[in-house]
Amino acid sequence: MKKEILLTPGPSQVPPRVRAAEARPAIHHRGEEFKRIYAKLHSDLKELLNTKGDVFILGSSGTGAMEACVANTLSAGDRVVVGNTGKFGERFAQINRAYGVEVVEIKKEWGGIVTPQELDELLKREKDIHAVFITHSETSSGVMNPIDKLGKIAAAHGALFIVDSISAIGGLEIRVDEWGIDMLAAGSQKALMIPPGLAFLAVGEKARKAYEKSKLPKFYFDIKAYRDSLAKDGECPYTIPVSLCLALSEAIAMMREEGFENIYARHRRLALAMRAGVKAMGLEFFSQHQSFVETVFRVPEGIDGVQLVRLVREKYGVRLSGGQSSYKGKIVRIAHMGYVTEHDILLAIATLEMVLKELGFPVELGSGIRAAEEVFLNNKI
Amino acid sequence: MKKEILLTPGPSQVPPRVRAAEARPAIHHRGEEFKRIYAKLHSDLKELLNTKGDVFILGSSGTGAMEACVANTLSAGDRVVVGNTGKFGERFAQINRAYGVEVVEIKKEWGGIVTPQELDELLKREKDIHAVFITHSETSSGVMNPIDKLGKIAAAHGALFIVDSISAIGGLEIRVDEWGIDMLAAGSQKALMIPPGLAFLAVGEKARKAYEKSKLPKFYFDIKAYRDSLAKDGECPYTIPVSLCLALSEAIAMMREEGFENIYARHRRLALAMRAGVKAMGLEFFSQHQSFVETVFRVPEGIDGVQLVRLVREKYGVRLSGGQSSYKGKIVRIAHMGYVTEHDILLAIATLEMVLKELGFPVELGSGIRAAEEVFLNNKI
Repeated sequence: MKKEILLTPGPSQVPPRVRAAEARPAIHHRGEEFKRIYAKLHSDLKELLNTKGDVFILGSSGTGAMEACVANTLSAGDRVVVGNTGKFGERFAQINRAYGVEVVEIKKEWGGIVTPQELDELLKREKDIHAVFITHSETSSGVMNPIDKLGKIAAAHGALFIVDSISAIGGLEIRVDEWGIDMLAAGSQKALMIPPGLAFLAVGEKARKAYEKSKLPKFYFDIKAYRDSLAKDGECPYTIPVSLCLALSEAIAMMREEGFENIYARHRRLALAMRAGVKAMGLEFFSQHQSFVETVFRVPEGIDGVQLVRLVREKYGVRLSGGQSSYKGKIVRIAHMGYVTEHDILLAIATLEMVLKELGFPVELGSGIRAAEEVFLNNKI
Repeated sequence: MKKEILLTPGPSQVPPRVRAAEARPAIHHRGEEFKRIYAKLHSDLKELLNTKGDVFILGSSGTGAMEACVANTLSAGDRVVVGNTGKFGERFAQINRAYGVEVVEIKKEWGGIVTPQELDELLKREKDIHAVFITHSETSSGVMNPIDKLGKIAAAHGALFIVDSISAIGGLEIRVDEWGIDMLAAGSQKALMIPPGLAFLAVGEKARKAYEKSKLPKFYFDIKAYRDSLAKDGECPYTIPVSLCLALSEAIAMMREEGFENIYARHRRLALAMRAGVKAMGLEFFSQHQSFVETVFRVPEGIDGVQLVRLVREKYGVRLSGGQSSYKGKIVRIAHMGYVTEHDILLAIATLEMVLKELGFPVELGSGIRAAEEVFLNNKI
């Protein structure tokens, strides 16, 4: 017998009551019941994102929402800055280039972040920058860029500020209007606790104006169709993944029961416990800029990182992630986003202790768990 | 107490065991179990579509797959023919125009189809046509275009043949290679019996060559990413809707138990019974070109079509569809695709009998049902 838990940065665990909601018999996406749910999802998402602007729901992965950010605001030949701090920053650059947009990259070694100062300096040097694209929580390296500070700098230079919060939404606070985020992409299968298949856009006034000038072709991701259909009939322009919307509705009901502020505090508490455990096991963090939805450590010298992740999964049913691209085998990523509690942190640390020991790393059994327990006992949030 | 059934052309009913599969705990989209399921889905879909070419699975509505057909094969300024026989033919024209492609329309009154002869004549007149786009089952009017005959004509004139089989797949036979379909879009929430959120592409050799010359920008719908990721790792390039893939896997298992040929025979038998019932009630068909996945009748003189559909739903829990656009209130559409049996046909006819009677239409109670029962008793397929 094996129990399994997913501690991967999407898909993440889906609560039983959310899965039950997803499994309801089909309802029609243009019927009254669905329209009520759909309207409520939009107002809930606005509250969660702290925006008075528009919110749209797409039937796609987060990448589709990222593409929507490009296709709805720009024209071929426009110049943009992309903060490339990992795989998903890289993706923003790729999407822009696929559309003939000129990209000026702030490319960091994985583990690094874009600082307000360097963005300001770059925008002073580079002229005619239409938009600044950046990743909020970069799950390839576990870092969080300082979204709350970068938006004002982009605005001061007349550039749109466009953020990928795909893995941040629901786990990290997002204040779209206050932070000057003009357009934001978010995903369903991370801290929002539902399976993959929905993506979200927040669109502010400046992005809406940029839309009017944008000449890039688009159809499925054209935000005007979503806005018009919502305004006219309270509907989606194309058939939305209905069962995932029912799941999201239930997930947000759970989030409201806990309280958005309490959820962010839970993610912080779990992250601090995980880090204390990782540190106590004698492991080294990959970055000093870690977000509260993920912990990433370097694979110790002499240990095979691929084997480490495999053994934790095969022997104990805990699915962690290894490194991607050139970091394959060199880092281990533990996501703690969404439907996670003390259980998940304790199981991740304990199973890592056993496997590290088995692989010859000098870890004292119980040391990581002891450190995590101390955090839980002393952080009574 | 009210029981409800969906007889709408997507979303359609989802079998309980498919809903149970969708509600399984999350599994990782890059894990071994999912890769096995994902590989099997591709080979199953190839068999269902009768193609040796490529098949790709997208996380989007069918419209996304239609857009992929345009963006992957054409360049701005190219000329195409669109067979516009209803709302979804119209959509192919809109997508092409959104991408700067010049559209020559064969626009028919709703209820009409594109004949091989008129396509041939048009292609003789119009030069430099890159592609012919057409809808297989056009659910806005209930017709089926003669896909099996049109492909050869497009090919004879050197044009790609691109088909929207979104509402046909799983209910109507599709022979991609034999019929000369170069690229095909299909959907999940119709006869494939799962909720909305997945779409499918079949891509033949000629479309693959057209891809190399296509200059339209694309990213999320770029088929090269799907092909490369499948070939390299057996994976999806972006996070696929995992729970919907699990649902599809179960739906296809059910389809195999019944047998693809038997499924098409069932759709034909149910359609014949529905039509016999509709005719016996004294109603008039909207078109002589009806597909076997839908029956569409004209609302009789003096009856309010919107009220008719509403009463059948509110009083008896049977959801039919009214007409769209200028046919609102003028036609009633009964979809019988996917998870439908004699139950659904009998309930649709019986509830229509009662509501028509109530609205003053001179229907003999039981007459529609009698006609349908005779079809069932005499069509022992």
